[in-house]
Amino acid sequence: MAKTIAINAGSSSLKWQLYEMPAEEVVAKGIVERIGLDDSIFTVKYGDDQKYEDTLDIKDHEVAVKMLLDKLIDLDILGSYDEITGVGHRVVQGGEYFDQSVVIDEDVLEKIEALADFAPLHNPAHVMGIKAFRELLPNVINVAVFDTAFHANMPESNARYSIPKEYKEQYGVRKYGAHGTSHRYVAERAAAMLDRPLEELKLITCHLGNGASITAVKNGQSVDTSMGFTPLAGVTMGTRSGDVDPAVLQYLMNKLNIGIDEMLDILNKKSGLLGLTGISSDMRDLEDNMDNEDVKIALDIFADRIRKYIGSYVTTMNGVDAIVFTAGIGENDANARANVINGMTWFGCEVDPEKNNVRGEEKVISTDDSKVKVLLVPTDEELVIARDVESLRENG
Amino acid sequence: MAKTIAINAGSSSLKWQLYEMPAEEVVAKGIVERIGLDDSIFTVKYGDDQKYEDTLDIKDHEVAVKMLLDKLIDLDILGSYDEITGVGHRVVQGGEYFDQSVVIDEDVLEKIEALADFAPLHNPAHVMGIKAFRELLPNVINVAVFDTAFHANMPESNARYSIPKEYKEQYGVRKYGAHGTSHRYVAERAAAMLDRPLEELKLITCHLGNGASITAVKNGQSVDTSMGFTPLAGVTMGTRSGDVDPAVLQYLMNKLNIGIDEMLDILNKKSGLLGLTGISSDMRDLEDNMDNEDVKIALDIFADRIRKYIGSYVTTMNGVDAIVFTAGIGENDANARANVINGMTWFGCEVDPEKNNVRGEEKVISTDDSKVKVLLVPTDEELVIARDVESLRENG
Repeated sequence: MAKTIAINAGSSSLKWQLYEMPAEEVVAKGIVERIGLDDSIFTVKYGDDQKYEDTLDIKDHEVAVKMLLDKLIDLDILGSYDEITGVGHRVVQGGEYFDQSVVIDEDVLEKIEALADFAPLHNPAHVMGIKAFRELLPNVINVAVFDTAFHANMPESNARYSIPKEYKEQYGVRKYGAHGTSHRYVAERAAAMLDRPLEELKLITCHLGNGASITAVKNGQSVDTSMGFTPLAGVTMGTRSGDVDPAVLQYLMNKLNIGIDEMLDILNKKSGLLGLTGISSDMRDLEDNMDNEDVKIALDIFADRIRKYIGSYVTTMNGVDAIVFTAGIGENDANARANVINGMTWFGCEVDPEKNNVRGEEKVISTDDSKVKVLLVPTDEELVIARDVESLRENG
Repeated sequence: MAKTIAINAGSSSLKWQLYEMPAEEVVAKGIVERIGLDDSIFTVKYGDDQKYEDTLDIKDHEVAVKMLLDKLIDLDILGSYDEITGVGHRVVQGGEYFDQSVVIDEDVLEKIEALADFAPLHNPAHVMGIKAFRELLPNVINVAVFDTAFHANMPESNARYSIPKEYKEQYGVRKYGAHGTSHRYVAERAAAMLDRPLEELKLITCHLGNGASITAVKNGQSVDTSMGFTPLAGVTMGTRSGDVDPAVLQYLMNKLNIGIDEMLDILNKKSGLLGLTGISSDMRDLEDNMDNEDVKIALDIFADRIRKYIGSYVTTMNGVDAIVFTAGIGENDANARANVINGMTWFGCEVDPEKNNVRGEEKVISTDDSKVKVLLVPTDEELVIARDVESLRENG
C-alpha cells in the first residue's frame, strides 16, 4: 500500500491532499494558510466529515510540513512518516525544459528556481514546498507536475508571438499556457466517455474557473491554448482582462500617468468580469444581478470570447469532435455553458437544456443529433499529480 | 458633369485621384511627397500613360493643393477650378462620432481634430488637407470618409475590452478597427458576384496588405474586426505584431530597460513578418527565401492567425457564406490565400488551385462544391470616397 501526497504550495499557503494508491482514495486533505504571518491557519479534513482546525504562528514552509506530517500521525491517519511513498508538487511554470512530470533531483530543482523569472509569484513558493519535503522525508520520491507541460510541444507557429525573434531566443518569450494538468485530465476522461481512443479525437477543452483557458487537444496533444506567456492572455476572466490591443497599455499609462507594473496590476486584478461590472469577479454574484446592463454585457463578452477561441481552434485542428467544459464555472454554471454553445448551430453543435441542467458530474450535455458533442467533466488535478507520482515511483 | 477628387493626406504627403462622375472614370491621379521638407516631389499621372513630375520645395499642404489645382489646369485636365464639384477626404479615425461619411462643417472638423488623441499621426494631417481645400475651393462640398465608420455600430460586446468600464466611458478605450472603407467595398462587390442581397449574407473579408485586418460582415454590417483600439491589434502584419499577451510588454520593458513608447515602437515597426524573419516585411521578399526556417515559420504564423480570426468570426455570425480576399497580398499572392484556406475542409471550404492562380481581378476561387465560397475582390477605397462625395452632394 502506498500513500501519495499532492502538494500545491503558494508563497504563504500549502494545499495538500493525501491519497491511498493505487486505490486513488482521498484519505485526508487540508490547507495551511498565512505561513510566515501571524495567526497561521491549519486545517485537516479526514474520515467521515471530520475536521481539525488550529490557529497558531507557522514561520515557514518547513515548519508547516513538519506540523502536517506530525498531525497526520496524531490523528491516526498515518502510522509513521514511512507510510508516505511519494510526494507530488504542482509547479506552475516548467518553461521549455519540461514536457512531462519528472522526479525532482538537484538539476530539476535548479531549473524550477531559474524559471522564477516567468512565474515570480509561484515558482519560488513551489521550491519552498519541495525543499521542506526533501528535508523531512529524505528517502521519498518527489515529483514535479507542471501546469505548462501539456502545452510544451505545441507547434512552433502556435507558440510564437510575431515579435523580433531574438526575444524568443534570448529571453524565452513564447506561449507557455497554463491549466495543462486539468486540460490533460478532462481530455482523457472525454475520450473514455465517448468510448473512442484519445489518439483519434479532436477536442476543445474549456477550463473555466476564476482563471480560464481554452485548449485545442488533437490526438491527445495540446496543439494550442489561450493563455500565453503568462496566464493574463486569452479569454475574459474573473479579474483578468484576457487579450487587449497592446496599444491600450500605452494610451492608458499616459492618461493615468502610471507605470507598466501598475498597468499590469490593473489588467490582472481589476479587469475581467470585475472591471466590466464594478460588482464582482464571481459569476454567481453577477447572475444574481441580471437586470444590470453592465452585467448583461459582461456575460455576453465572457461567452463571446470563449466561443471565438473555440471557433479559432476548430481551424487549428480542421475539425472538432467534442467541446469539454470543466472547473468552477464550467462544471457548475449551466447558463454559462449554454451561452457559449448557443449560436453554434452552424458548427452542428447544440446543447440539450435538460441534459445541461446538471452540476459537477461527468455527462454528455449535447442533443442526441449534435454532430459536435458537448461534455461536462469535473476536473481533478490532484488525482493527476498522485497518479504521476505513482507512475514515476514504479517505473521512473 | 462632375469632377470629384479623393484625397488621402498624410503628415508630409498628399495622395489624390480625380474622378469624372458619375462615370467613375479616373482622369488623373498623383501624389505630393515630402511636404514641408526640402525637395518635395510632385507627380501627376493622366491620359494614356502620361506623367508629369517635378522636384521643388513645397512648404505646407495649402501650397501643395494650390499647386495641384493649377497643374491640373496647366495640363488641360481641368478648364477651371469650378469644374471640381466635390472633395472627399479619407479620415483614419472617426471615433464614436461617425458611423458614415459626412459633409465637413466646422463641427465635423473640430471632432476630427479632437480625435487626434486616438490617431496622432493621421488625423492632424487629414485636418491640414481639409483646411487647404476649404481655403482654395470655398464653395465646394468637402466630405469625410472614415476608416472606422463601417465598424462603428458593431455590438457593444464585440467592441469592448474586458478592462475597468470607466476607461471606456472616460477615455473612449474600445475597438475602433480600420480599413472600413475597403471592407465595405469588397463586401458589396462580393454580394454582386454571388448574385445575392448583401442584407442576407454572412461574409468574412480579409484585407491583407502591409497592414491587415479581418472583418465579420453580417447583413451588410461590420459586426467585428481584428484591429482594435489601434491598427496594432489582430493578425500578424508586415511590421506589426498583432495580438500579444500584454504581460510580454512588461517583461520585455524590464529586460530591455525601455519605456512603453519604445516598446510600442518595436511592436509597430520592428515586429510582424520583419521581426519573425529579420529579412523583410514584404511577403514577396519572404517567398523568395522559402528555404529559410524563419521564413517558413513566419508564413505559417501569418496564415494561422488569419485562419483563427476566420474561425472565430464564423462563431460570431453562426455561419459564413463566403470568405473574401483583398489588398496587396490578398489580391496578388495565391500562395498566401491557399495557405489560409487549406486545412479548412471541415468548414466545407476549399480553394481550387487553378482558379486561384490569378492576380488582381474579381473571381470566385473556391471549388465548385465548396460550401463556403472563396472570392478575390480588388479593393478600391478611392472609388468609395468619390461615390460618397457624389451621393452627399446630390442628396446631402
